[in-house]
Amino acid sequence: MKGLASMSSAEASRPRIVVIGGGFGGIELVRGLRGAAVDITVIDSRNHHLFQPLLYQIATASLTPSDIAWPIRFLFRDRPEVSVLMATATGIDTQRRLVMLKDLDPVPYDMLVIATGARHSYFGHDDWERFAPALKTLEDATTIRRRILTAFERAEAEHDPVRQQALLTFAIVGGGPTGVEIAGAIAELARDTLKRDFRHIDTLETRIVLVEAGPRLLPAFVEAQSEFAKAALERLGVEVALGVAVTLCDADGIVMGEERIHAATVIWAAGVQASPAAEWLGAAHDRAGRIEVLPDLSVPGHPEIFAIGDTVAIAAPNGKPVPGIAPAAKQAGRHAAKAIRARLAGEPVSPFRYRHDGSLATIGKRRAVIDFGWIRLSGALAWWIWGIAHVFFLIGVRHRIAVALSWLWVYLRNQRGSRLITQTEPGEAGEPPPG
Amino acid sequence: MKGLASMSSAEASRPRIVVIGGGFGGIELVRGLRGAAVDITVIDSRNHHLFQPLLYQIATASLTPSDIAWPIRFLFRDRPEVSVLMATATGIDTQRRLVMLKDLDPVPYDMLVIATGARHSYFGHDDWERFAPALKTLEDATTIRRRILTAFERAEAEHDPVRQQALLTFAIVGGGPTGVEIAGAIAELARDTLKRDFRHIDTLETRIVLVEAGPRLLPAFVEAQSEFAKAALERLGVEVALGVAVTLCDADGIVMGEERIHAATVIWAAGVQASPAAEWLGAAHDRAGRIEVLPDLSVPGHPEIFAIGDTVAIAAPNGKPVPGIAPAAKQAGRHAAKAIRARLAGEPVSPFRYRHDGSLATIGKRRAVIDFGWIRLSGALAWWIWGIAHVFFLIGVRHRIAVALSWLWVYLRNQRGSRLITQTEPGEAGEPPPG
Repeated sequence: MKGLASMSSAEASRPRIVVIGGGFGGIELVRGLRGAAVDITVIDSRNHHLFQPLLYQIATASLTPSDIAWPIRFLFRDRPEVSVLMATATGIDTQRRLVMLKDLDPVPYDMLVIATGARHSYFGHDDWERFAPALKTLEDATTIRRRILTAFERAEAEHDPVRQQALLTFAIVGGGPTGVEIAGAIAELARDTLKRDFRHIDTLETRIVLVEAGPRLLPAFVEAQSEFAKAALERLGVEVALGVAVTLCDADGIVMGEERIHAATVIWAAGVQASPAAEWLGAAHDRAGRIEVLPDLSVPGHPEIFAIGDTVAIAAPNGKPVPGIAPAAKQAGRHAAKAIRARLAGEPVSPFRYRHDGSLATIGKRRAVIDFGWIRLSGALAWWIWGIAHVFFLIGVRHRIAVALSWLWVYLRNQRGSRLITQTEPGEAGEPPPG
Repeated sequence: MKGLASMSSAEASRPRIVVIGGGFGGIELVRGLRGAAVDITVIDSRNHHLFQPLLYQIATASLTPSDIAWPIRFLFRDRPEVSVLMATATGIDTQRRLVMLKDLDPVPYDMLVIATGARHSYFGHDDWERFAPALKTLEDATTIRRRILTAFERAEAEHDPVRQQALLTFAIVGGGPTGVEIAGAIAELARDTLKRDFRHIDTLETRIVLVEAGPRLLPAFVEAQSEFAKAALERLGVEVALGVAVTLCDADGIVMGEERIHAATVIWAAGVQASPAAEWLGAAHDRAGRIEVLPDLSVPGHPEIFAIGDTVAIAAPNGKPVPGIAPAAKQAGRHAAKAIRARLAGEPVSPFRYRHDGSLATIGKRRAVIDFGWIRLSGALAWWIWGIAHVFFLIGVRHRIAVALSWLWVYLRNQRGSRLITQTEPGEAGEPPPG
């Protein structure tokens, strides 16, 4: 058995491509380099690639983590030139061309791709996170699932009606696709899935408040579709508050504008903050921390470094910013693969041209909005297209069957397969001890 | 909405049956009381019933938690007389007939069933638990899964060959069914599932040591089957050490007899300790803490209290102790339901007679041993019977399809669907941060 260092020196004749991040951008980049005479190392602090667009379905008990996650090294098991390293990147030494790692030796590169993504942002109120978890990782999703399900359990045992109502109140901050999807899913969880399971509470009395600071939901869609989403949510019993900012999150819930909402469960689906990669590089970045890359996706002053996905700020051909969605990251990954091939061949690198294929968002299990540009759909047909598209984009037959099976049960029987309260946080009140 | 207290007083005319524990015994008891004119409250610190016989398959990445767990209240959604309370019992006030709960008001009972099960025992070495986790809850299973998968990840990044070999060494303490099943599953994980996924280690060099203090594996089976299991494990590359006690578990592995095994991953599959229910009652108990119940399963001096399952010591008609297995707990649950009906009708209560239907244990994905008394099977046919029996005993069509699908993939493609490293323990060395 040999270590990483001996490998790298023994095969130093092939250019070493290092990719930080195994999300949509990083995975697509490695796919795009198939057959190239390079050695590739993928570094990720997780062992798995995650299909983030369906993460909210784990948080709301429809899907289970293994439905939408794949070991990164499993995806490249047939590519002997690809190594995967589970490690946390802590910096980049651009002089010596090294990626610095936590607890491990630095990894040398000839060309580097930064695909480190984004985290949620609390707009300077990081202390809100413990009251209002956001949704980015599998652990985030199981944390939110635990809080939602535990709230119903505690309400069932609660004698005080005021406290009971607070336990049955859910506040979701942010009216983009994630907020809309979570609000719709919690509404259906309460109305359909749980309605026969409790004896001392009526889950139909669940209150769900979706707060959006902007003037409408789903700002990436046209106004009529924002209206459709709002009406569809309201039909599910969700209260939609528009044009009002959340000024406080605490143990009692939120304050929106002047109004206090007593909610035991608050979910954060607002702001996004890029990874610290711009700081590692000392590169110019926007307010959200996104690296301002050149048109070919390389980092200014570093033709050997490309950056892609949510950690990058770049304009689309129409002048608007490229959105932080999976298809954009995948396109950038494909472009960076081509750019690396061109650079290695000494050929000129073409600029990245983002092509917007469409926007999709779902509201509960029967309604969605889709804007493909050439056609817009709102309603049941859009929901079917949304569902089929998402099953299609999962990797592998087994995952597609598993997700389709879970959805079938939700659709036909209202039964959600993953109503598990697990992994209690220490000190979280009213939850059982882990032992 | 009304609280628990008002419910209980409003319907005090019906006898209040309280069940502590939603395992096999508790669930079967509630099923056995269908149609009886009683009010039932099931108390469990978890929200889910767990199919423990397959828990090792979560620990070894074949199944996912939602495959083998069901919300307890979902199981009784069609039984309006059954309430489920997620709460941790802390004691029993037999004078006032109250179950004491953590953070919640006591729950009154007319008749009580204790089905609180067992935990693993470290034979007085509780400090070994952090080095050698055992397998009883979903969290235990995901903890062990994380440690197994992380060991391979860390070995891939390790330069020092001695340290690398320790990372690729797995010690399993205890040669009962759980130890045998885990050892076989880790062997197949290393040999088949992972073999193409790493570049700097050869997973075929994985060392798996199964240590049993007694003279043979699977003491519940006949000697020939113990021999079969040992040979089958050895064919998978497992080292089986018999008649040697583990005298130390620490961060470096274990000491068995005089020999130090350097193992980064140690799994505890030895001793069992009953729940503290005997202490709550001040009842006579054996060394493992199991309540010594009367032949009808009632607690001596308390005809209104029954105790069932792994927290009970009782002899079978053949004089041997009733084993701590799922079928025994289910039979006891059914008996306790009949006993409660008889007690309420003023009729005499018959003694519990355990009927041993058989013992099953599996070694990897093609071998099992079965002893039904009238027939004994060892090998591939036994494995198929084991698999079909376990799918049959799962609750609900969806779970059966999901488990069968997962097993199909393991069987045909050697691919395990749940190779996820999640829920990092704070301070666990070499793992990624949760954020």
